[in-house]
Amino acid sequence: MVRMRTAICDLLGIDLPLLAFSHCRDVVAEVSLAGGFGVLGGSMFTPEQLETELAWIDDHVQGRPYGVDIIVPERAAAMQPGAAVDMDVLQAAIPDEHRAYVAEILAAHGVRASADETASWNVPSPDDLLDVAFSHPIKLIANALGVPPAVMLERGRAAGVPVAALVGAKEHAIRQVAAGVDIIIAQGTEAGGHCGEVTTMVLVPEVVEAVAPVPVLAAGGIVTGRQMAASIALGAAGVWTGSVWLTTPEAETAPHTREKFLKATSRDTVRSKGRTGKPSRQLRSSWTEAWEQPNSPTPLQMPLQTLISEPALRHVDALAAAGDKGAQELATYWVGQGVGLMNEVKSTRNVVYEMASDYADAVERVARTLDPDTV
Amino acid sequence: MVRMRTAICDLLGIDLPLLAFSHCRDVVAEVSLAGGFGVLGGSMFTPEQLETELAWIDDHVQGRPYGVDIIVPERAAAMQPGAAVDMDVLQAAIPDEHRAYVAEILAAHGVRASADETASWNVPSPDDLLDVAFSHPIKLIANALGVPPAVMLERGRAAGVPVAALVGAKEHAIRQVAAGVDIIIAQGTEAGGHCGEVTTMVLVPEVVEAVAPVPVLAAGGIVTGRQMAASIALGAAGVWTGSVWLTTPEAETAPHTREKFLKATSRDTVRSKGRTGKPSRQLRSSWTEAWEQPNSPTPLQMPLQTLISEPALRHVDALAAAGDKGAQELATYWVGQGVGLMNEVKSTRNVVYEMASDYADAVERVARTLDPDTV
Repeated sequence: MVRMRTAICDLLGIDLPLLAFSHCRDVVAEVSLAGGFGVLGGSMFTPEQLETELAWIDDHVQGRPYGVDIIVPERAAAMQPGAAVDMDVLQAAIPDEHRAYVAEILAAHGVRASADETASWNVPSPDDLLDVAFSHPIKLIANALGVPPAVMLERGRAAGVPVAALVGAKEHAIRQVAAGVDIIIAQGTEAGGHCGEVTTMVLVPEVVEAVAPVPVLAAGGIVTGRQMAASIALGAAGVWTGSVWLTTPEAETAPHTREKFLKATSRDTVRSKGRTGKPSRQLRSSWTEAWEQPNSPTPLQMPLQTLISEPALRHVDALAAAGDKGAQELATYWVGQGVGLMNEVKSTRNVVYEMASDYADAVERVARTLDPDTV
Repeated sequence: MVRMRTAICDLLGIDLPLLAFSHCRDVVAEVSLAGGFGVLGGSMFTPEQLETELAWIDDHVQGRPYGVDIIVPERAAAMQPGAAVDMDVLQAAIPDEHRAYVAEILAAHGVRASADETASWNVPSPDDLLDVAFSHPIKLIANALGVPPAVMLERGRAAGVPVAALVGAKEHAIRQVAAGVDIIIAQGTEAGGHCGEVTTMVLVPEVVEAVAPVPVLAAGGIVTGRQMAASIALGAAGVWTGSVWLTTPEAETAPHTREKFLKATSRDTVRSKGRTGKPSRQLRSSWTEAWEQPNSPTPLQMPLQTLISEPALRHVDALAAAGDKGAQELATYWVGQGVGLMNEVKSTRNVVYEMASDYADAVERVARTLDPDTV
C-alpha cells in the first residue's frame, strides 16, 4: 500500500492526502478506512438527518478521521446569518415567473410537476448543522462558499478542528487566510459544483504562492493519481475530490444520471447558475440548457434558486430511473470535467487504491526525467 | 544546469522538453540556445518576411534545433486549400456592418480609423509559407488549428520533419493521429490564443490515454517549472508554451500591452471570437467587451475577422504606446490565464533557466512525499 506524507497528512492524521467530498456516508467512511479522508456534505440534510448520518459514520469508521462540509454563503437572499430560517419568508420571495418557468421546462418534457413540490423543500439553519457537526468527533469543518462565518471559525478553534474553505480566485484565498481559515481548497473552473473561472493548473500555484505556509488542497478535475501528483508538483499539500466518487456503487447519484456520467465526455459539462443561483458546474442536459436560453428568467439568489430547482430535479431523477424519456433528457447533477475520465463503476475503496498506485507511478515517471540514462 | 530526458527530448534532440511558441525570432533562438526548442509562429508573415526571419534564426541558433508553426484552418471563408489567396475576394466578403462596427468601437474610444486600414492587411498563402519553412533546416512543423493539410504531412514525412498539431479535445487528437500527425499538443482552455473548453488538468491525461504511444505536449497556462512537472506527471512528454515569453524584453508584445500583462490577474482574460472568428483567449479590454455585447455583429469566419480586427488593433497598439487613453483601454493581445503568474520582465534565457530549476524543485517535492520520514 502506498503511503504518503505531506503537511496535510500530518495535520489530519492520514496516510494519503486525498480528501473526498460526498453527500453519501458510505463514501465518507470507505475513503477514511482506505487511508484518505472523507468529508460529508451536510448542507442538504436537516439537523436530524445529519445526526443520523454522522452517528452512522462514527459506527463504521473505526476511529479514522473524517470531516463535515457545510455551505454558509456570505450573502443569501432573505436569510440572516445566525438567525433561524423562516421557510415561509423564503417561499414568499420566489417570483411567480420562476415557478412558472420550472413548470414550463418540465411540461415541455412531458413531466408533470406536483403542486406542493417546491413547498416540500427545507433549508436547514447552518447554525443547527454546526451544532450537530461539532457534537461528533470531526477532524475538519469546511465551508464550500465564501469566507466561513465567525461562529464556524470560533467553534473550530475551540474544538481544535481545522477550518477549510473553498476558493476560486487568489484574492479570495488571501481574504480567507486573513479571516483565520486553516486550509485553503483552491478549486479550478473544471470542478463540479460551485467554481470560478481560473483553471486548477493556474489557480493552485497562484494560491500556494499567495498564502504560504498555509496548506493548500488542489481541487477541480482531479479523478486520478497522476492528477494528484500534478497537484503536489504545483505546490499543493493534497487534493480535494468530489466527482470521482459519483460513479461508485456507494454514491447517492441517481441511477440514470450515473449512466449519463459514465458515457459523458469532458466537454459535456456546463457552468450554470440555473441550479443554485451561483455558477456551478454540472452535466449538460435539457434542464441546464433551459436556464441558458436568452429568454429564461435570471436565476434567483441563494437559497431561492435551490428551492425551485432541487425538488423539480429530484422528481425528474425518480421518473428518469423509471424510464421516462423526457425526465432522462432533463436529468443532471453536479460533476466536473473529470467526468470524461470516469468510464466504469468502481468501488470507493478501489478508487482510493487505484489513485494511490497511479500516484506512485506518476512520481516515478517524473523522477525518471532527471536521470539522463533512461526514458 | 538541469538536463531532462523524455520521448520529446529524444525526438527533437533537446535537453529540456520545453517548446516555446513565439512570433519573435529572438525568443525562438534564445530558447533553442538555452536547451529548449523555439517555434516561430509564421502565419502573420508574408513569405518574404518569413524567409528573412528564418535566415536570421539560422544565423543565430548555432545549429540548435527549432521549428515553425503555421495556421492552416480546415475551414476558412473564401479560401480554398492549395489555391492562391485572392485578397480582393476576401475584402469583398467582409460585410459593411462589420467594418462599421470596428469604426464605431474605435470612435467610442476617440480613435480615428484610417480609411485604408483593413485594405492594408495581407493573408499569406499557407503553401507559400510551407515552401519557405521547408527550405530551412527546421526540425518541427506545427499546425495551430485543425488537422494539418495533406501537403504539410507529406512534406514533413519527405523531409523527416515531425508534424505537430494543437488540439482542444480528445476526439480531435484521435482524428489528428489517424491523419498521421507525429506529436499532439493538448491545449487546455486556459491557453492564450485558440483554445477549447476543457482544462489542461483534464485534457492532458485524456489525450495521453487516447493516443499513446504518440507523444503529447501539454499546453495551456504553463508558465513555470512546477507546471512543467505537473504536465509530466499527467503523462505529457513535455510542454508547449506561449504566453510566458510575451513579457520578455525580446518579445513582439506592444509596450502598453506588456504593462497590462504584468499587472493582470488570472481572471483578466476572456475566450472570445472577436479577434479571429474562432474562440481565442486574450486579455480582456474594451475591444473584447465590444465583441461580447448582445448587439455586436457575429464575428466573421477565418480569416475575415482577422482582416478587420488585426489592422485596427495594430493601430491601437501604436496609439497606446504614445499615451492615448482610449487606445490604452482597447489594447489587447492573446494571452492565457498564466498571465496572473507573469509579474516581472525577465529575459528569455532567464525564463528557461528558472523553469528548469523550478522543475527540478518540483520533482524533488513530489518524490519526497513517498519518503515517510520527511515532510
